[in-house]
Parts: sequence; C-alpha cells; structure tokens
Amino acid sequence: MSESIKIFAPATVANVSCGFDIFGLAVDNPGDEVILTKRNDNKIVIKEITGDEGKLTYDPEKNTVSVPILRYLDKIQNKTGFDIILNKKMPLGSGLGSSSASSVAGVFAANELLNNPLEISDLLPFSMEGERIACGAAHADNVAPALLGGFVIIRSYEPLDFIKINTPDELYVSIVHPDLEVNTKDARIILRQEAILKKIIAQTGNVAGMVAGLMSSNYGLIGRSMTDYLVEPNRAILIPYFNEVKQAALETGALGASISGAGPSIFAFSQGKEMADKVGQAMKAVFTAANINTNLFVSGVNQNGPRILD
Amino acid sequence: MSESIKIFAPATVANVSCGFDIFGLAVDNPGDEVILTKRNDNKIVIKEITGDEGKLTYDPEKNTVSVPILRYLDKIQNKTGFDIILNKKMPLGSGLGSSSASSVAGVFAANELLNNPLEISDLLPFSMEGERIACGAAHADNVAPALLGGFVIIRSYEPLDFIKINTPDELYVSIVHPDLEVNTKDARIILRQEAILKKIIAQTGNVAGMVAGLMSSNYGLIGRSMTDYLVEPNRAILIPYFNEVKQAALETGALGASISGAGPSIFAFSQGKEMADKVGQAMKAVFTAANINTNLFVSGVNQNGPRILD
Repeated sequence: MSESIKIFAPATVANVSCGFDIFGLAVDNPGDEVILTKRNDNKIVIKEITGDEGKLTYDPEKNTVSVPILRYLDKIQNKTGFDIILNKKMPLGSGLGSSSASSVAGVFAANELLNNPLEISDLLPFSMEGERIACGAAHADNVAPALLGGFVIIRSYEPLDFIKINTPDELYVSIVHPDLEVNTKDARIILRQEAILKKIIAQTGNVAGMVAGLMSSNYGLIGRSMTDYLVEPNRAILIPYFNEVKQAALETGALGASISGAGPSIFAFSQGKEMADKVGQAMKAVFTAANINTNLFVSGVNQNGPRILD
Repeated sequence: MSESIKIFAPATVANVSCGFDIFGLAVDNPGDEVILTKRNDNKIVIKEITGDEGKLTYDPEKNTVSVPILRYLDKIQNKTGFDIILNKKMPLGSGLGSSSASSVAGVFAANELLNNPLEISDLLPFSMEGERIACGAAHADNVAPALLGGFVIIRSYEPLDFIKINTPDELYVSIVHPDLEVNTKDARIILRQEAILKKIIAQTGNVAGMVAGLMSSNYGLIGRSMTDYLVEPNRAILIPYFNEVKQAALETGALGASISGAGPSIFAFSQGKEMADKVGQAMKAVFTAANINTNLFVSGVNQNGPRILD
C-alpha cells in the first residue's frame, strides 16, 4: 500500500444560471492539488500551502483540506495521521469552487491511501464540511460535481439526495475570472429572501428545461433555459462589467452565460470547443478593455472528478 | 375530404406535484369527445352538449370548444362554418383538465377537417384561449399534454416554449375524483404570492429530480421528487380528506401523490398497473368511508394526445 499520494480535484461551476444551490458541474481546468503522506503518529499536519498568497490557515481544525479529513477519520474510526501539502492552482474567492476542490482532493486522497473503505459518493458529507468552514454553509453544489465529475443535481439537502446526469458531448464551458475578489458570504446575504410566484414559475420552467436539454443533448433548449430570475439580478450588481461580458458571450454565439457560483467568475456554455474558445476571448476582451486582469479557462465537462496524478 | 369527424382528447394532470404551472401529463382515461361537422355557411353553431348537467354555455363566443376554433379560423383566414357536438365524458371543475380536453378536441377536429393546415403543436395557442375562458388565465399545463400527449414541460410562457419528455414504460397514474366541486379561479387565489428562498431551492431541486427521474426511468427518484412546497400546502386545505388519501396511497406503495391541477381530484404515481390499481382502490376507500362518492381512473401515460374515433 502506498504511503503518499497526489490528487487533482477540479474547479466547478455552481448554480449554472437557473439552478441556485441545486446545479453544479465540474471542468477539466483549473483545479487544486493535494499531496497526502501517512505519518507515523496520529497527527494531521499541514506542511505546506502554495498558490494562496498566504491567505489560508495552517490550523488543521480550520483548513478546508484537513477538516473533511478529520471528520472522515472520525467516521471510519481510524487514527492514521497525515502530512498535507496543498497546491492551490486556482484563484481563491473566484466562484470556481476553490474551497470545494481542496476539500474533495483531501478526503479523496485519504480514502485512497486507506484503501477506499468508503464509496466515493459517501465522501460528500465530509467534503461539505470544508464548504461550511469556507463560506458558512454546507453547500453541495460545488462539492458534489468536484467529487463525482459531470453535472450534478442536488435534489435535496435534508436528507442529502444528489444525481449525476448525462451532458452532451459537445458542451464546452468558457470561464473568465476577473482579478477582483467577491466574498461568498457577502454575496449570499444580498439575495432577496422572497420572490413572487411568477418568477418562481419561470425559474422552475428553466430548471426543468435545463435538465431536459442536458439529458437529450438539445443545445437550443439548454441555451433558452439559461435565465436566472432569482439570484443573478442581485449578484450581477457586485461584478463590474457583468452585463457587457454576458452580452459579448451571447453575441459571439454562446448558448448562454451567467455567474459562476457567487462570482466574480463568469461562465458561458457553447456547442463545440472552437466556439467556446471564441466566446472566452470575447468575454476576456471586455475586462481587458477595462484594464482588469483575467484568467480564461476553456474546458469540456469533466466527467471523472478527482484523479490521481503521477 | 370528410365533412364530419369525431375526436377524443384526454384528461390531464397538471402541476404533477412540484411543477406548478410547468408540468402536465395526459392519461388514457377519461377524456372528452367532440363531433365537428362542416356547415354550408360560415357560422359556428353549438348544436348539443351532453354530460355537463346543463352547466356549459351554447354561446360560441364563450364556449371552451368554439372559442379556440374561432381564433384558429381567424389565424388561418378560413371562413368555414361548423356544427359542434360536445360529449363531456369527465366531471367539470375536477382538476382533470376538463376544459382543456374540450378545447383541444375542438381545434384538433377543425384542423383535421381542413386537412391539417397547421402542425399539431401550433394548435396550442388557440387551445389556451379555451383555458382563458374557463379559468381566467391562459395556462398551458393541461392544454399542452392534452394536445401532444405524454409529459410536457412548459419551460416558458412568454415566449411560449414547451417540451415533451420521455416517461418510463411502467409509470401508471391513479386518479380519484371526489364528488365535490372546487372552482379553479378560487383555488388560484389562495396561493401565497411569496415563498422563502429555502422553499424555492427545495422546489427547484424536486423539479430537476422529477425531470431526471422521468427521463432516466428512475422510479425512486420520481417518487422522492414528489413533494410540493409551494402550492399543495395551501390547496390541500380546500380538499376534505386530502392528507388521509395521500397517506393511503403512500402506504399502499405509490411512488408519490398530490393534487391533480387545482383539485379536488387527487392523483398518485405507481410503478406498474397492478400497484396503480391497488393504490387507486386505497385512495377511493378513504372517500367512501366518509360517504363521498368518487370516480376512480387508472391509466398509463397517454403518449398520443387526441385521436380520431370511429
């Protein structure tokens, strides 16, 4: 049995336009890396964190990688100790599920090193504890696709019930991340707690259309379903140039565009990689013209979730 | 070309638990019959209505069969006149899409007699005008499945966008109609115009789960998705013994149960006809014990919509 393992876990787009707190999908790029090594004692030690500009804590009771591992070890009643190295390969507070990728990579690595006592899907509740630490609530819409890959519906939180559904082969995601930080906790607070019935009907129609569109590879239906009546209108205010970036994506030929998670990253769906590249460039160009630095990621839907590196 | 035609159009279950105003499905039984005969002049005349206990109007500008035909003829700029006979084969005000079945049968018959100048799906807006007359709003969640058959998602009303999705072969519907009248207009008014975000998330999760469950023949997922947080709690108050009937269905082995449309009919989904029969009997027994007369209908999902009789 191996004593050390290096795991990649993917970035994720949560909400996916109309699916606030219930939809999420994984992408191939970017993602985080965690290296886990067994210790001779039963301590959990965070040895090194790179790529975080010094922002993340080394306290194992507060770090998004170690907390899920601690809860996992409690559950399986195992006292193995680990050294943890976390290489952040994506921006923090970006709306790309940065904390989820770290949480998933850590607990997936631990389960692998202990010879998989739990099924992968059973790791979800532990990974969600990392989310609770990062953003104050145990959401699953980033964690579940980071763990399972693909497009995931979180049907219910109590009890937890999630389903991975098929996505069309030609579905590509363009993500532009502007170098602006929006705190996820703040972004949730400005959500309106009430919505009128008419908006709920329109929203549920789009949720149903999105699922039907994805499962039947109906790209037009996917695009038509990409209007979020509940959350985007509020959150878009926090993201400079959001409307212009979305417009640029649609004019270039994207199926639809919206905020990735709580933002500030903005994603678009396109049919085919070529279009997704063009769309991404058009979105990036809006920020560039405003002198805002960006990262651009173009990727298919990641169907596998975490993977072992090397 | 034929001068007369007799058309059956099916009853429908709208809302289907979590899909208020966006989900509807057609059943094989009951349904309405319309006989349409060309006239030598350009008048629309309602010759006879049976099975309505004298409740429906013979005024062509106000009747749910003739109004869609009038709008349809305007649209295609055709001045053919018709005699209309309507045989109501299902209870009025029952939550089974009684007015939709009549509307659909009429306009479908006219289109057939005129050699189908419009596609069937293009008949929807005219049929919806029959709904506007019957219940004050032009809903599509009964009309669309009555016209297209199957399970239909109304993704959007403005613009109108609807999708028929596949349903599992073994999905059966038990409907019990108690002999109590609930006016649809009244039933809509007691809906709360606001809902908290948490309920919206739970509701959208179930909408997504229902679509995914139907499209992947996942009966368990269909059943788990059958909780309506928004509408059922309010409407159930109008239907005596609703909770007991639902409980009887679930205890017998139904996947789930809810109100059909605005009620008072109550439907349940089951896997297999045998179970659906048992479930229907159990639901009926609750009303029978309370000395309330009922009609019971058990049916698969009607995949074809209207059909020509004889």
